[in-house]
Amino acid sequence: MEDAYGTLISSLAVANERRIVLLVMDGLGDCDNDGAGTSLQQARTPHLDALAARSALGQTLPVAVGVTPGSGPGHLGLFGYDPLVYQVGRGVLSALGIEFALEDRDVAARLNFCTIDTEGNVTDRRAGRISDEENRQVLAKIKEKIAPPAGVDILLETVAEHRALMVLRGDGLDDDIGDTDPQATGVPPLSASRGPHDKSRTAKLVDEIIAQVRGILADEPKANMILARGFAKYPTWPKFAERYKMVPGAVAGYPMYRGVARLVGIPVVSQPTSAADICSETVKAMQDHTFIFAHFKYTDKTAEDGDLAGKIARIEEMDTALPTLLAGKPDVLIITGDHSTPPSLKAHSWHPVPVLMSGPYLRGGDGAGGFNEITSRAGQIGTILAKELIPLAMAHAGKLEKFGA
Amino acid sequence: MEDAYGTLISSLAVANERRIVLLVMDGLGDCDNDGAGTSLQQARTPHLDALAARSALGQTLPVAVGVTPGSGPGHLGLFGYDPLVYQVGRGVLSALGIEFALEDRDVAARLNFCTIDTEGNVTDRRAGRISDEENRQVLAKIKEKIAPPAGVDILLETVAEHRALMVLRGDGLDDDIGDTDPQATGVPPLSASRGPHDKSRTAKLVDEIIAQVRGILADEPKANMILARGFAKYPTWPKFAERYKMVPGAVAGYPMYRGVARLVGIPVVSQPTSAADICSETVKAMQDHTFIFAHFKYTDKTAEDGDLAGKIARIEEMDTALPTLLAGKPDVLIITGDHSTPPSLKAHSWHPVPVLMSGPYLRGGDGAGGFNEITSRAGQIGTILAKELIPLAMAHAGKLEKFGA
Repeated sequence: MEDAYGTLISSLAVANERRIVLLVMDGLGDCDNDGAGTSLQQARTPHLDALAARSALGQTLPVAVGVTPGSGPGHLGLFGYDPLVYQVGRGVLSALGIEFALEDRDVAARLNFCTIDTEGNVTDRRAGRISDEENRQVLAKIKEKIAPPAGVDILLETVAEHRALMVLRGDGLDDDIGDTDPQATGVPPLSASRGPHDKSRTAKLVDEIIAQVRGILADEPKANMILARGFAKYPTWPKFAERYKMVPGAVAGYPMYRGVARLVGIPVVSQPTSAADICSETVKAMQDHTFIFAHFKYTDKTAEDGDLAGKIARIEEMDTALPTLLAGKPDVLIITGDHSTPPSLKAHSWHPVPVLMSGPYLRGGDGAGGFNEITSRAGQIGTILAKELIPLAMAHAGKLEKFGA
Repeated sequence: MEDAYGTLISSLAVANERRIVLLVMDGLGDCDNDGAGTSLQQARTPHLDALAARSALGQTLPVAVGVTPGSGPGHLGLFGYDPLVYQVGRGVLSALGIEFALEDRDVAARLNFCTIDTEGNVTDRRAGRISDEENRQVLAKIKEKIAPPAGVDILLETVAEHRALMVLRGDGLDDDIGDTDPQATGVPPLSASRGPHDKSRTAKLVDEIIAQVRGILADEPKANMILARGFAKYPTWPKFAERYKMVPGAVAGYPMYRGVARLVGIPVVSQPTSAADICSETVKAMQDHTFIFAHFKYTDKTAEDGDLAGKIARIEEMDTALPTLLAGKPDVLIITGDHSTPPSLKAHSWHPVPVLMSGPYLRGGDGAGGFNEITSRAGQIGTILAKELIPLAMAHAGKLEKFGA
């Protein structure tokens, strides 16, 4: 796929001193909760509401109608990188999630410990969800006994429970490697080098490595085998700074979001997690950055736990902190989410995400009724793709030249 | 890029006698002005408001979210020619703007007079913004002394201040020619035939011509060199009449808009500039044309000058003239702009453009609250791409057959 829109925007970008702040309240959108309204509707948010009354509102589709994004695609869309064009492998996302420093030559894969029977068929794809501690012990055993192929280092890291990260490090590795997870029980793991992956030298190495691991783990009661999927090299994508002629910085406390920012070349300048610290650190970052990505995790975390009251409280926490951010006077301020996470679903969802944008050239303020999913969908921004949001903010900040004469 | 939508519409087009009028009030859209509303909101427009109350409203994106169009792309979009597919070179647009009659074999470029120092480095990319008169004198000097390459005519025309048009006329010319404008001072002009343009025969001729010009202008105090950019041949695009099976005519008083109409094969039938004359000439043109493009310049011109009161007055001028146009009873009437031009910006902008469409098969009238940016965005047309507007009008005029059985 082509990134025609991104290429167009990049060709029009010009640098100036104006500041754009993108405040992501992770999983912000919600659906109704038993007639009581969404979490944004239920939260008491005097500062957000006052800002909404003088701001443009709208909503974004992270990927496409009906599509629920993971955290990677959700943020790539917000950064203006079409998530359907810029697809990131699960192995790389696993590395980002534990802040493993991938090198350009690395190939990363997501591992699951699993249980196989004496015939070699998978009986439990998650090895009874072993503990993190057991995960670490089994990985240590593999590391001690494995004989890596010549010229290749095998790096293994615990993620959580039955999940781990495997990174192959060496020159000339490729990532044309099949998933070995059969996604079913009663069948054996797949070969990494089966067609159409049979021309990959690295896939054959993976088969050798996994055969060794099987031998090493043969006497384990539960985690006696591994399944690998999402083999991927670290992508080389256009860097945010060059693409948009802005000086970007990330204010983000959680590894996954720092990692996604780094994927597009946004350096992490601060790692706060509370709303108050995020707002004050963002204002500091505005001194020497023209674009700040600020990330607040807890609106998603509470919603993933099904904790509606917790999500409401976290929205109110950000509302209380907001005056600090506003005092920094960003030229264009966007407040939105990377996706919706309804507490009733305990998961990310496909719902459009409410967005608020303040700036100097608006068609009046849309949020006389506050900032929520209902007021947002009638706003002047309309319903746009997430990838169109930064270009729109750039237009408002005078950072895009005219197209054609 | 492909023009899949245009190809589809063209394949469905059928001729009939119904009349579509596209009235373009240039730069119509605005943003809010210090809480007093947009120019459309502030203008007293009883006729437009009455029409809006029984019309469909909506808004168009000229190119894409956040993208500010020039006049060329703005009008191509309205004509249903995707501005990202049908890109027109700056040289051709410069020729259109002064109504220079380009031939198919011509290559046109935009020239800037500039000042260079004794080392040949550019010190002023606009030669101190010389007067039109000085521009004409310097061009006359070049014309007198230059020795054109064999088989090539060099045609030079003043545009304004430091800007001029150069047209090379001859058989077998190409337009794979580099811009010589370095877009910076302190460096010399670029070669027109540098890579990747080093296979172009015409680029080498351009280098020879510019070397001659440098010698001819050596004793000029300010305009002692030229910079050329946007070399382009006149494009051969699908003609409007064939594409849509309509008989088109343009009612447009300004050279640029007559030129853009001719680019897609719309002949100019009248050249009025006042709202009253535009409306009466449009009604006349309806006698033997089934599509009339009518262009009113002053809503943009006033806005580019930052003259909010002037823009409001020009909107009111068109409102007063509107009954004349309505008396002609077009089957489908579109009133819109080619882009927004907020007086507060003194420039074209990226904001969506309000659109009004009257016709026989509407879902009621949208504009009980009048015709402006706020009522329009809630209307039945929704937010569409400018290129979708003529197809929509054709549908309402019965000029598009069913797709599939």
